[in-house]
This record gives sequence, structure tokens and C-alpha cells, in this order.
Amino acid sequence: MALNKQAYRGTRDFFPKDKRVRDYLFSVMTKTAESFGYESYDGPLLEEVELYKAKSGEELINEQIYSFTDRGERFVAIRPEMTPTLARMVAQVHRESSKPLRWFSIPNLMRYEKPQRGRVREHWQLNCDVFGAPGRMGEVEILQVAIELFENYGANHAHFEILLNDRAIVDSVFKTLMKTSQEQSYRLYKIVDKAKKVNQDAIIKMVSEVNLTKESEDIFYSYLKLKTFDDVSSFLKIHHQNEIADQFSLFVEQTKKLNLGKYLTYDPTIVRGLDYYTGIVFEIFDKHPDNRRALCGGGAYANLLQIFNEDPLPGVGFGLGDVTLKDFLEVHQLLPNLDNPTNDILITFQEDIGLDASLKLAHLLRKENFKVVTSLEAIKFKKVFPTAEKKGVRFVSLMGSDELAQNKIQLKNLDTKEQQTLDVNDLESIIKILKA
Amino acid sequence: MALNKQAYRGTRDFFPKDKRVRDYLFSVMTKTAESFGYESYDGPLLEEVELYKAKSGEELINEQIYSFTDRGERFVAIRPEMTPTLARMVAQVHRESSKPLRWFSIPNLMRYEKPQRGRVREHWQLNCDVFGAPGRMGEVEILQVAIELFENYGANHAHFEILLNDRAIVDSVFKTLMKTSQEQSYRLYKIVDKAKKVNQDAIIKMVSEVNLTKESEDIFYSYLKLKTFDDVSSFLKIHHQNEIADQFSLFVEQTKKLNLGKYLTYDPTIVRGLDYYTGIVFEIFDKHPDNRRALCGGGAYANLLQIFNEDPLPGVGFGLGDVTLKDFLEVHQLLPNLDNPTNDILITFQEDIGLDASLKLAHLLRKENFKVVTSLEAIKFKKVFPTAEKKGVRFVSLMGSDELAQNKIQLKNLDTKEQQTLDVNDLESIIKILKA
Repeated sequence: MALNKQAYRGTRDFFPKDKRVRDYLFSVMTKTAESFGYESYDGPLLEEVELYKAKSGEELINEQIYSFTDRGERFVAIRPEMTPTLARMVAQVHRESSKPLRWFSIPNLMRYEKPQRGRVREHWQLNCDVFGAPGRMGEVEILQVAIELFENYGANHAHFEILLNDRAIVDSVFKTLMKTSQEQSYRLYKIVDKAKKVNQDAIIKMVSEVNLTKESEDIFYSYLKLKTFDDVSSFLKIHHQNEIADQFSLFVEQTKKLNLGKYLTYDPTIVRGLDYYTGIVFEIFDKHPDNRRALCGGGAYANLLQIFNEDPLPGVGFGLGDVTLKDFLEVHQLLPNLDNPTNDILITFQEDIGLDASLKLAHLLRKENFKVVTSLEAIKFKKVFPTAEKKGVRFVSLMGSDELAQNKIQLKNLDTKEQQTLDVNDLESIIKILKA
Repeated sequence: MALNKQAYRGTRDFFPKDKRVRDYLFSVMTKTAESFGYESYDGPLLEEVELYKAKSGEELINEQIYSFTDRGERFVAIRPEMTPTLARMVAQVHRESSKPLRWFSIPNLMRYEKPQRGRVREHWQLNCDVFGAPGRMGEVEILQVAIELFENYGANHAHFEILLNDRAIVDSVFKTLMKTSQEQSYRLYKIVDKAKKVNQDAIIKMVSEVNLTKESEDIFYSYLKLKTFDDVSSFLKIHHQNEIADQFSLFVEQTKKLNLGKYLTYDPTIVRGLDYYTGIVFEIFDKHPDNRRALCGGGAYANLLQIFNEDPLPGVGFGLGDVTLKDFLEVHQLLPNLDNPTNDILITFQEDIGLDASLKLAHLLRKENFKVVTSLEAIKFKKVFPTAEKKGVRFVSLMGSDELAQNKIQLKNLDTKEQQTLDVNDLESIIKILKA
């Protein structure tokens, strides 16, 4: 029986054309992260499941993770996210590293998803994190990196927006103003996290089940109505949370000075689930009506190293998946045309005896850093140009019987259509034309 | 209890310094492959185990593979090699692709190895393959790519050699000259594959167990003594295998014309195990006495698509792992110093009020494609230069109280030690100096 030619469910084959798109996505990520001095790292594909259990909720461990027991009885998982690995690595070196520590990575991750638009089982994710930055400068810088990244893809505030909150504000509302128990607070986080996905009646029902006082309920609903940074500021000051208000205002001021303001909107429902965040949290949303989705999320966390018994080291980071990013760029027509590769020259010969001279020329041009495609057998004149197009070359070299008799080549520039006859050994002139 | 900070057994954490080395290895691989017009592809991390069973021996499937059953009852494995995925992908598109098809990939692979020098559980491997090349031009080109790759790392024939054979020769010796049964031929392949690892007595013992005629045994031992391309040619001609001899000589001639001869040595024991190869097979060996190992292996195969019921499409390829490559470059001192990253400028300020001007300058320089590291708080003059060194910058910008009072920066070139005072808003002059 013949084998199945399709990729495993929820994963992708990257044929050269698809791979060029991925390479483009990654090259902009790398360029942007490096423009801020972030250094690339990577970790293993497998980690012990303990690591994910310590950091994440049980749902992820039980249902969404590719886990198995290895031959040495270790219970391991294919990494579903990078943060636990990052924490493990930073825990090894943070003592002797100068701060801030700026790291990025673009790992492949696997989750046991039901495949659908924007969701696959294997995806890649840019992770940018900064550790040990003073005050809220890490938050400011991470937002800058994320915005610069989107701008480097050609996007602007017509294409995306950043919805932002501060977990310190949420905590102060729940714990200080509403005086909730830990369990009530946990349930309110879940309600807030769902608030945009369900209707008002459902929210009222869920809130009523938390058993808040009337006063606390009122505070909760007025919190949910906050829409602008000014709203937040007034709300916190009315409730005498001046320190939290001031810290947040300082942060907002700093983002405005860096012209990030046009991208940022306050949103009380952004809390990033029950995750490990403790400060600013944000999500980047596509503004396109056909793709109204979160593209990217991140925030500040104070205690990521705790699970390794290390002293707290404040960090801020974000993650951006390749699938949602590609959808975003496609829907806004921001992806360059990458149908064909890019090469410098296609070297062809029209008579068998041209092989040696062709291969020699190809070899010499490669030593000069040109990308050279050779035909490995004689090809007819009329086949040369369709091949040249598929290979994305700028130049074609031809050797018919006339040229071969005189040790010449015809060198054609496919953009200008200029064609020149050159001595096949006159490397200097050939290079000069290729570089022009 | 605190969690373990170490990576899973046999895998590696790539801290920024390690990652720079990996990135360097990969960048030379990519540059070399692309200089021959090879196009990058990638496949999924997981494949169904059936695929590996169809292609590989049972040993690999049973003992060396990371396999498990997914939640949908699919028996899958983390890819231990790339060739089956490559075959699956080529089977999907080869009909409508123009030939030769030139592809490369640098996937991460996992095998359940006992970790030791040169062997880890997760490694990366360059795979270069060409499909549908005429005659033996695919073999010639793949050897060229492999040699060019090593040369691009700065290696030459003092550092490595290529041991080479032709499975067509081996088959003709075993089947035509020695008239062995399929089972005898299989056992002889195993003996040849081991010949360099065991002593003469062990070989004699193993051969005697194959039950060959005296005449066949003599042919086998004279085959094993072949040392040069001329030896092979004479041997085949004595035994009237002229067609096979001529095809091989033609191939050898072609490699000599391309100056590959200095790297190539005939070796009758190179057969690449019981693998799927059908033509030229080769292994690249480190010549260093401390690292006398195969770095890379490859060859030509005729029937890789058979398992998908596709028509035969001849291919040639090789694989090169990152661990053995790194050992090779280290033992020959060919690795560049990558201890520090490379950045353009470190922007610092020595008084708190310098923050805004610093961040603004950083932002503008990033838009001009410079790699800019900022200090996010005031740092003392004496801390600036140690930081600059760690960040691998060429320039440092300083703003003390004098400069801040006048909206100036001190821009210092760390190579020439030249220092200039510039207006912080005079971006044009700053850029000119950074680009000089």
C-alpha cells in the first residue's frame, strides 16, 4: 500500500515558496529584535513535564500538550511555549549577567489543537523578553519592540492597535477596593478574561455567583466601563489609589514621549488569563474587519524564577505566532511577492561541449559571492528564459555553437534586456556587469 | 522543591554565545546552498511512524526513535532524519516541478542516543538534495556543494578528505562477478560496512560464514584491497565490467576537471550501510588525528519515491550534523570568535534627565538600520566601556551634565578612540560618523 503523502494533521509542509514567506517573517523579527540589542537564544525541543506544571495551568498539561514517557522513564513534553524554557535558562545565568538581559528566540512549538483558521499544531513564535530593566522601562521597551516589528512589516496604526492594562490596577481594584478573597479574585479574573466574548447577561450571572457585596459589585462594573487612560486615572484617584495611578500615568507618559500613544488603548478586560503576569499586560489586535483577532500578547512578570528557588528578577516579554502574523500581513496585503527565489545568474549552454566551461564559470562566480544556477545539460534557447524566470535570476549566460567556438558567452540582463558578448575567461568584466 | 535548571538529557541550551555559533554554522550552510541555487524547505516536527518504517531499518524504529501515540491514536515520531519527509514532500510536487529540483533544509532532529562526544539526542542537520539531474551531474554537483561548504568555513584538503565509492560497482562485484544470492549480498554489505572497524581475522571469520565459493571469496578480498580510482578501473576491466568502469571513470574525470580531485579518495568500504543508495556514495572525514571521524555522508538514490507509488526520480544528497561540524571547526581552530554580539552603538546618559533624548536618538538610529543598545537608566562613566565591550558595539554615545545642558552628545569610536561632540538633533552628522 502506498504511504500517505500529506503532512501530519495540523502541521505544515514548507515547500520553497512557503519557506521563503517564513524566512521573510523571521528575518524581520530578527532584524527588529537585534536593532534593540536583543540576543538570540534557543532551548531544547523537549522539556520535563514538571517544568510546565510548575508554570502553567492544568488544562494545558492535560489536554493541549504533546507529552510522553521516554525510555529512561522521564515524563517529557514537546515544548508548547517558550517561557518555561526561558525561565530555566535565565535561572542558570542571571546572577553573572549584566542587566538588562535582552533575549529573543523563534522556536517551533507544538500544541494539541483542533486545526482551524489561525490554529495549527506546530507553529513558530517570536519571543522577546527583557529582564532586570529599571522601573517600567522594560514595559516601554517591549512595547517599542513590538510596534517597531509591525512597522518593519509595513504596518501602521490603520492596521493594528494595542489594548493594554496593568495587573497592578486589577489587583488593587479586586483586593484593596473590593476586598475579595483569593478565590473570588480568581473567579473575577476569569470573568474579566471572558468579558468580551460573552454578552452582558452572562456577565451579570457570573458575577452574581461570586457573592460580592453590592458595593463591590458596583466597583467591579464601573471598573469594566473604563475606556481611556484618563478614565483609569480618575477612577483610581476617586478610590484613593494614588500610588498605583501615578505609576501607571508615568508609564503612559513615557509611551507618549516615544510616539507610541497612537497605538495604545486602555482595556480593562485585558488580563492575559490566569497567567504569571504582575504588571503591564497587552494584546495587539488586527483592526481588519475580516481578521479581528489578537496577534500577540505579553506583559510584565515579577516572579518567573521563583520555581527554581531563585531571587525575583522582573521581566517583560511578548510572544507572536507565525500563523496569525501571516494572516494579518495577507489580509492587509503587506506580504511581498515571494513566489520565486532570488538568484544572480543562470548559466546555460546550448551544445553539450559547453558543460565544462559553464561549470568553471559558475564556480568562479560563486567564489565572488554570486548566487549561480547552472543547467547541468545543454538546454534549448527557448527553454532558457522560462527557467530564468522560475529561478528569479537577474542575468542569463548563453553559449551556443558560435560562442563555444570562440570561448565566448552571451550575457543578458533580464531587467534592461541588454546583451553583451564576453570572453568566458574575462571574469573581471563579467563580474563588473553582474555588480552594476 | 525547586525544579531542575538543566536541559533534558542529551539536549542543549543555546545561550546567546552558543546560539551565535549555531547561527554562524547555519549562515554558511545557507549561503553555500543558495550560491548553487538550492531552495530552502522544511517539514513538520512529527511524522507518522509508518513513513520511517517504510524507509529505514527496524533498529532505528525500535530503539532510536522518539515515538508515541497521539490522542487521535496516530502512531507518530519526532523526526530522526529528514530524508523521509523530503521524499514525502517531493512526491507531492515532482510532477509539476522543473528539473533539477535543488532543495536544502537545516531541521532539528531527535534520536534516542546515549549522549557522548559528537552524539546528542537533539541535533541539527544540513540536508542538500538534487533530484532529476542528468547522468551523474547530480553526484558531481552535490560533491561540489559539500566541498564548497567546507571551504567557506575556511577548511581545505589539509583538514578533510572525501572517501568515495559507487554502489553500482559494489552490486556488480557481488551480484555479477560473485554471483551471490540476495541474502549473501546483504551479509557482505554488512561486512564491508564494518570492515574498517574490525580486524582482518574478524573479517575472514565473517566472510567464511557467508558460504561463498573459493573464487568468489578471492574476488571479494581483491575488491576490498582496491585503493585508487585506477585500481578500480583495472579491476573492473579485468572482470569485463566495462560499462560500469566507464561510467565511474567519466564521473571521476568530471570531478577532476572541477579541481575536486585533491579531496577524493576511492574507498571500497564506503557503502553507507544498508541504506537506500544506488549510485555514488561518500563520506567526508576529518583528517585531524584527535577527531578522526566521518563528518558527513551522502550519495545517489534511484527509488526514494517508490514508497509513495511514484515513478522513480533519481536523487543525490548529503547530510551534515551541527555537532560533528562544530567539533571539526574547533579542532582545526576555524571557528571565529563569537563571544560577544555585534552592535553599532551603545547610547548612554549619565544624568537621569538624559533618558528621553537617549531613547529618541536610539529610535531614529534604528529607523536607519543601526543596531542600537540603550541604557535604560543613568549609568556612571566608568561603567560605560565595560558594557560597550560586552555588547560588541563600535560606538558609544555619552551625555553628561555638560552635554545635557547643551543638547549635545559625545560620540566615541571605540576602534580609533576618536571622540566628537555633536548636537543630539544633528542626525545627519551622527549617521555619517556611524557609517564611516
